[in-house]
Amino acid sequence: MNQSCLFCRIVRGEIPTPLIYEDEICIAFNDINPQAPVHALIIPRDHITSLAHARPQDGATLGQLMLVAARIAEDKGIAASGYRTVINTGADGGQSVFHLHVHVLGGRAFGWGPG
Amino acid sequence: MNQSCLFCRIVRGEIPTPLIYEDEICIAFNDINPQAPVHALIIPRDHITSLAHARPQDGATLGQLMLVAARIAEDKGIAASGYRTVINTGADGGQSVFHLHVHVLGGRAFGWGPG
Repeated sequence: MNQSCLFCRIVRGEIPTPLIYEDEICIAFNDINPQAPVHALIIPRDHITSLAHARPQDGATLGQLMLVAARIAEDKGIAASGYRTVINTGADGGQSVFHLHVHVLGGRAFGWGPG
Repeated sequence: MNQSCLFCRIVRGEIPTPLIYEDEICIAFNDINPQAPVHALIIPRDHITSLAHARPQDGATLGQLMLVAARIAEDKGIAASGYRTVINTGADGGQSVFHLHVHVLGGRAFGWGPG
């Protein structure tokens, strides 16, 4: 846990945030600046600064984040139409909160490249 | 394994492709249509059609794909500058090969939203 980290504060319940999913490993909520009709964030309860900071023992957590992404896509009704999952790492990636998070976006068609 | 799947054929060595990483779970190679100076694809050796087709028991594989993404970013020299990792699922996501793959892109700054 990181005292000042925004997402750690959400994990601790210090910033009331409606959760759309939670388990022992992660929580998920809607992005406050959505880039698509469906735009959810999935974050680990443990503070991992970014994908570049993930250790080998974080593999199970990373796998769970991706499985939960697919589950949320089902719950939101975009599994059949399709969706994009994104992790931004560091400055070039456009990471804005330095607590690892997976974006799940859908409900519209995405162009290629990815930003 | 899927007989006609392009990426299964690369896994089997039927389409000669320089690999930039391989282990028991996955292989990685450069995208033939790069969207950034660094653009690699990481694919599981086993055929998983898309993230929407991943089963709970595929969690370890998904985690390994993401850890390998971070490792490739290190190898390619973009870990410090930053990078974006993307999985496209289905039509809206822009998935073009129906064998799960993680895009790792870097060497330039990415805008937001993600396509």
